[in-house]
Amino acid sequence: MDRFTVTYRIVAEDDADAMARAEAIALEDTVEIPRDVVPTGYVEDTVLGRVEAVTACGNGVWVGRIGYHMDAVGRELPQLLNVILGNASILRGVKAIDLKANGALAERFPGARFGATGLRELTGRKSGGYVCPVIKPQGSSSETLARLCYLTAVAGADIVKEDHGLSNQDAAPFKERVKACAAAVQQANRERADQGDTSRALYFASIGGHGDQVRDLAYYAKDAGATGILLIPGLFGFDAMNRLAQDADFGLPIMAHPSHLGPYVLSPDHGYSHGMLFGQLMRMAGADISVFPNYGGRFGFSKDECSSIVDACRAENGAGPAILPSPGGGMSLDRLGDMMSHYGEDCVYLLGGSLLRYGDDIGDAIREMRTALSAT
Amino acid sequence: MDRFTVTYRIVAEDDADAMARAEAIALEDTVEIPRDVVPTGYVEDTVLGRVEAVTACGNGVWVGRIGYHMDAVGRELPQLLNVILGNASILRGVKAIDLKANGALAERFPGARFGATGLRELTGRKSGGYVCPVIKPQGSSSETLARLCYLTAVAGADIVKEDHGLSNQDAAPFKERVKACAAAVQQANRERADQGDTSRALYFASIGGHGDQVRDLAYYAKDAGATGILLIPGLFGFDAMNRLAQDADFGLPIMAHPSHLGPYVLSPDHGYSHGMLFGQLMRMAGADISVFPNYGGRFGFSKDECSSIVDACRAENGAGPAILPSPGGGMSLDRLGDMMSHYGEDCVYLLGGSLLRYGDDIGDAIREMRTALSAT
Repeated sequence: MDRFTVTYRIVAEDDADAMARAEAIALEDTVEIPRDVVPTGYVEDTVLGRVEAVTACGNGVWVGRIGYHMDAVGRELPQLLNVILGNASILRGVKAIDLKANGALAERFPGARFGATGLRELTGRKSGGYVCPVIKPQGSSSETLARLCYLTAVAGADIVKEDHGLSNQDAAPFKERVKACAAAVQQANRERADQGDTSRALYFASIGGHGDQVRDLAYYAKDAGATGILLIPGLFGFDAMNRLAQDADFGLPIMAHPSHLGPYVLSPDHGYSHGMLFGQLMRMAGADISVFPNYGGRFGFSKDECSSIVDACRAENGAGPAILPSPGGGMSLDRLGDMMSHYGEDCVYLLGGSLLRYGDDIGDAIREMRTALSAT
Repeated sequence: MDRFTVTYRIVAEDDADAMARAEAIALEDTVEIPRDVVPTGYVEDTVLGRVEAVTACGNGVWVGRIGYHMDAVGRELPQLLNVILGNASILRGVKAIDLKANGALAERFPGARFGATGLRELTGRKSGGYVCPVIKPQGSSSETLARLCYLTAVAGADIVKEDHGLSNQDAAPFKERVKACAAAVQQANRERADQGDTSRALYFASIGGHGDQVRDLAYYAKDAGATGILLIPGLFGFDAMNRLAQDADFGLPIMAHPSHLGPYVLSPDHGYSHGMLFGQLMRMAGADISVFPNYGGRFGFSKDECSSIVDACRAENGAGPAILPSPGGGMSLDRLGDMMSHYGEDCVYLLGGSLLRYGDDIGDAIREMRTALSAT
């Protein structure tokens, strides 16, 4: 296959209109000129997107598959997204719903460094779902946040994740906070090891700062003792995540947060399908863990939409290794049993604000989570 | 005012529901924990978003105004967007429609370096609309693209803009292409000066590469002779643009391209209003020129939506200096008169693919544009 393919959901009036709209997407996302002035030869034969199939689905909806040559992309992720859904993101009634890589795409964008298998090794958690408390709220001091890190880590958390809103505010500046939280988790891990625990808590620092500082901040976090990072591709760019994932010297797992990405999936007519954005694209862009709002929480994702994300995270033909889905958003302990039966053990279970109700007994909540997620 | 405010369009069932949803946004975009566990004191009084007003608009729609303290933001743009519409972007029926800065916000995010007034000076074009040919298609060699630059610049173009799809592909690698195109525009400017022309063409290089290379690529372009850059905030991040805008050493004007941003405006219920995204936010994030799809072209923006963008680009109370709107997308020469009467002379008029129909006579098209945009 000399092309990778993107499937689009297309709203159209009839077969001819659907075909015309598919041809328009193929032009828009590559050469962006009228069809009659596309230069013959290389540009027309190779660079121009190629409509491979357009199929009616009923109810005014068609599905069109377009093949793109890697020559239209090059080697950098921003231009890949430009080709997949750049200007076409502005066309009415066009939604990207599936990506099928070819060899060239898979080679240039190899996906996550660790994935689901790697996280088992890094945490030493051989089975069961991952217990992942979220450290917050912003406005707290570094000491307060570090204490939450310690209490949750020592009680058995697998991943201690900073809230994505912990950025670089004066109350807990990035560098001060990360140093304190990393030390707290390290202390907890020492105590766990002393008690014979063969698992350990990873500490994922939330990258907060300027976009052009992401690499430096990630390395700072690593040097300070962080064992993973949380990044927001919707604010820092998918390429920022991918660059760290492909950096062997960096070598820490990455958790992707969905902040600012809602509009890409909330409309049936525009953006990406849930599975393509939070599954396929996160995975291709190097996320080891993809966070998304769980069904039944305070966000409006359906159970099927969540399943489509999970399927894409785990699909055998996806980019690189399978990655871990991570549902969250207004969850509480009493829902974990239901979630475990839906998502299974290769899943990072987020619990945030409701943990704070436990106060100094937050360790009890972590142990309850552990019990709920170990039962199979 | 110790807070800046964001106004949201909220879909709700009744007044009480609308108020509850506004309170939910205020929580979601700051502390992201349940209201009953928000720590008293600093976090509750300062960090937590504050609902200032919720007003019914009829038809199941309310408008809510929320005040945020800069302490929730810090000094970096990614976290500002997190506060404005981070997790709230994933809430159903929540759309950000207006931003009102306070002094602290205006100080930390001062906007564009040049804006509308600056572009008059940089181009030497004292009046009339700006003639802006778009150099394309991708897949062409650097020589072919440089020739288009020369032909359009020597014929009187004000801004020679590379297509946003010219990235870093093998057919015309970024560094080779930018060097050739910059030299071509410089040659054309010398010839214009020799003929007594007091105006000159600026050459805006399209930044194509990795996200963490944006600064280096922009400086490379400048050193090669580029006199502006084109950047895609929807792929590289709004902060990447702002960092260059605030870099006095860099000091070139910036054109923002809307690629990949469509889903933020196309749904009435989610994302941003057209004016807020392509006007207020582009302006605050340092764009001197904001590109958007013109009404009546191949994209679906209405005339009113385009007007709201223009109004926000020019509003007296906006961030920094007024900036230039730049409508494009499938335009042709015969529409320029109508556009000029709608947008006026402080506007960058894009003309792309249709120019290619002129072949070697592309200079004639530029002169026709000049005539159409000079008539007042």
